[in-house]
Amino acid sequence: MSEQELMKRLSLNQITTEQWNLKEAVEGSLRHDIEWISVWRHKIEEIGLKASKRLIQDSGLKVSSVCRGGMFPAPTAKERAERIDDNKRAIEEASELGTDTLVLVCGPSPDRDLCAARKWVEEGIDQLVPFAKDHGVKLAIEPLHPMFVADRSVINTLEQATTMAQNHAADEVGVIVDVYHVFWDPNLYHEIKRAEGRILGFHVSDWKVPMADMFKGRAMMGDGVIEINRMRKAVEEAGYHGPIEVEIINQALWDQNGDDVLKQVTSSFKKHV
Amino acid sequence: MSEQELMKRLSLNQITTEQWNLKEAVEGSLRHDIEWISVWRHKIEEIGLKASKRLIQDSGLKVSSVCRGGMFPAPTAKERAERIDDNKRAIEEASELGTDTLVLVCGPSPDRDLCAARKWVEEGIDQLVPFAKDHGVKLAIEPLHPMFVADRSVINTLEQATTMAQNHAADEVGVIVDVYHVFWDPNLYHEIKRAEGRILGFHVSDWKVPMADMFKGRAMMGDGVIEINRMRKAVEEAGYHGPIEVEIINQALWDQNGDDVLKQVTSSFKKHV
Repeated sequence: MSEQELMKRLSLNQITTEQWNLKEAVEGSLRHDIEWISVWRHKIEEIGLKASKRLIQDSGLKVSSVCRGGMFPAPTAKERAERIDDNKRAIEEASELGTDTLVLVCGPSPDRDLCAARKWVEEGIDQLVPFAKDHGVKLAIEPLHPMFVADRSVINTLEQATTMAQNHAADEVGVIVDVYHVFWDPNLYHEIKRAEGRILGFHVSDWKVPMADMFKGRAMMGDGVIEINRMRKAVEEAGYHGPIEVEIINQALWDQNGDDVLKQVTSSFKKHV
Repeated sequence: MSEQELMKRLSLNQITTEQWNLKEAVEGSLRHDIEWISVWRHKIEEIGLKASKRLIQDSGLKVSSVCRGGMFPAPTAKERAERIDDNKRAIEEASELGTDTLVLVCGPSPDRDLCAARKWVEEGIDQLVPFAKDHGVKLAIEPLHPMFVADRSVINTLEQATTMAQNHAADEVGVIVDVYHVFWDPNLYHEIKRAEGRILGFHVSDWKVPMADMFKGRAMMGDGVIEINRMRKAVEEAGYHGPIEVEIINQALWDQNGDDVLKQVTSSFKKHV
């Protein structure tokens, strides 16, 4: 793929510029010739769905995904039902913003029983699929790094996510491959291959040693140890040729000027993705 | 199993009382009716192997393991050969101290290529097996949590460790199940079962949210989210009935009086293991 073709796939995952609101992120993306954006729900909420939709439509930016649905496990049936309702709103937002991909961060367990929590995730997805389908939205299960099992998601390997996705049709439920979450996996390339036809997104950042912060410590591509380029080629061989989201959760980047961040993003993307 | 039988299996992994030298750890264990100890090599080095051996023999304590061999991957053949030599010394130390178990922390990759590093681990173990066998020592591969892939070990799941162990006879190479490193694994109970006859040690601590420190943030049993008791029963069903090492790497514990730490260790062990 030419450098130009690659750069046309870059999508700004909005959490990378957490210091910006949606308007700033949209305008920043245009200034840096970025064609795609992934929109976070807390940013939509700040200005409302209608204004968000108008902003994006006027900009000509394409939306690669909405982040995020999920968070299924909860101790009571009532709370789990509330989570489903919230996911339905997320599906509506994705549909309104013109993307067919809702990223699912599936949620931690309310107690020590990981098996029960994983069952609730499965049940939650089962319940959502018909609603998502009606709205033209696919559910994209993102396995999170095992270090997040206790506070963010009980879905921790690509194997687990793909197996869960396979309970449904390929145009209903798929997976996100985020290099930061899966690069360590001894079965990684086998599992990427197994996810063929199910990959709904590819996210990039890097893993730098030492890790400053488990949550806000993701690094710019090229600053860490992840074989990003090899993984990009593997997901392409598995049939994914869509937008590539740069999703870097990093306090040091949030403390910088957003335009400086986007300069680093585009330059690192060119070299290391 | 009666509480008394369970307590007879408690082993003090010496890193839990990093503030103590070997003499203090041995005497502390005796004061708290602990029958087993796992000895770390940097503690042996402080006083020498001969003095360490005498201390332990005089105390009547049994040695559950020596921590640690491993650290196989290195960029040059010369360096990898040096690592093998160091592992041979570790095997001799284990043998001298009267344990048949050397714990392997297999080491990080010197560069981005995890596949190559994992191959070096495999080759390193292949080279060590005859020497270890001659000394009556088994090599115990300890999978480390995936968050340590870049700085401590490229062996990150029980599946991977067991598969690697199966290249050799069951009385030559096995695995360590450490709850902190493997509790997140969606295939955990399946993999414990698959490791039947290969489990050479069971280590306990806990995973507390939020994690204060990736390396020195392990918690006392019962203070976190790990189903320790369920895992203990699973490794027993898979044939392991040996010592259970309490291995808590935690700066806050190291800052306390060692006897206070051992009081917490024995009390938490009784309740939560």
